[in-house]
Amino acid sequence: MTILAPTEHSRLRRRAQRGSYDRATLDPILDEALVAHVGFASEGRPVVLPMAFVRLADRLYFHGARANRMLGALLAGAEVCVTVTLLDGLVLARSAFHHSMNYRSVMLFGTAVEVTDITEKNAAFRALVDKTASDRSTQVRGPDAHEHAATLLVSFLIVEGAAKVRTGPPVDDARDMEATCWAGVIPLRLQAGTPEAAPRVAGSHPDSPRGES
Amino acid sequence: MTILAPTEHSRLRRRAQRGSYDRATLDPILDEALVAHVGFASEGRPVVLPMAFVRLADRLYFHGARANRMLGALLAGAEVCVTVTLLDGLVLARSAFHHSMNYRSVMLFGTAVEVTDITEKNAAFRALVDKTASDRSTQVRGPDAHEHAATLLVSFLIVEGAAKVRTGPPVDDARDMEATCWAGVIPLRLQAGTPEAAPRVAGSHPDSPRGES
Repeated sequence: MTILAPTEHSRLRRRAQRGSYDRATLDPILDEALVAHVGFASEGRPVVLPMAFVRLADRLYFHGARANRMLGALLAGAEVCVTVTLLDGLVLARSAFHHSMNYRSVMLFGTAVEVTDITEKNAAFRALVDKTASDRSTQVRGPDAHEHAATLLVSFLIVEGAAKVRTGPPVDDARDMEATCWAGVIPLRLQAGTPEAAPRVAGSHPDSPRGES
Repeated sequence: MTILAPTEHSRLRRRAQRGSYDRATLDPILDEALVAHVGFASEGRPVVLPMAFVRLADRLYFHGARANRMLGALLAGAEVCVTVTLLDGLVLARSAFHHSMNYRSVMLFGTAVEVTDITEKNAAFRALVDKTASDRSTQVRGPDAHEHAATLLVSFLIVEGAAKVRTGPPVDDARDMEATCWAGVIPLRLQAGTPEAAPRVAGSHPDSPRGES
């Protein structure tokens, strides 16, 4: 697997022991997350857009309506920051100060470009749909020429950035270890519930990528 | 409740029917979310930081180590965008094109300022800890003078921005209604698991704000 070269911008400074530049760490985080927060300048002001996305090899793909003014600003911007965060737990320590969260996050820097190649566009559209449910793209009507034209597809090359991960119990001071309060981790997980069929639906529901509760 | 005045920057354009400027819509989203994605320019490049936060009245509070270079850049930046996203479901339509997500999001624009008032700082520290578990701040050791000084507290006034919410089943084209595939919503929820006690812990675990699975 590739290791990203740390740059002046992506080099981890705070708690660098929690960080990684290794694609073997980054990719599973990018593949599990359903939403990325995409930051760029729009008319000179910072904007952070929550966007569905998918990774294929070394690229992330985002899409939206061609008429979307924000996507235009994203493409026009010189620089983009893509941040993906998975929340794994609340960390309850014996002191207020050492309270924390367990998480896995990735922060990437780069530029966004429009995808016009029809083969690449179709592969990304299929992968975006398959992220909602396994093989979903083979079961539904694919995009027609009008839908294809109305959808702007944007790709972002994974080349600069890092992951940051916190796991494990709270780290308390020695002076607090005799405290009588509970301390530990409350695990958190994005959990799928019982599928809710749309009106007039036929067929059985798909398996969810997150399992059902 | 207050309605935020739409500005040139915050006015909703795409799918404006999903939007709201009403604090009665914004505040519950801000209060349920554990992490915000905070965007700003650092050395001229966009950065999006995932940060724990809490809302008290008209302000959001963020904190971090005073030595954190990123927090310094956040405070130095003229403009900040705070985006909060709660994912509520995967929307599986009968066509690839109409696949979507159910979500509740808030996007706010403004500037970040350091909080130095000791009363405000203590209230925000307590609220940040209480967001992990009800009344938690009364059960743990509060910050001492050294911890107080080492922690930078940042406040952000809620004045410009909007919420955007999608709910409900997929919206399919009439031509696709005879499709045999399943369609509907797979609900998603950030769910707390069984609390994991830290080594040497005494006492029973707290009630989680998200309930236990």
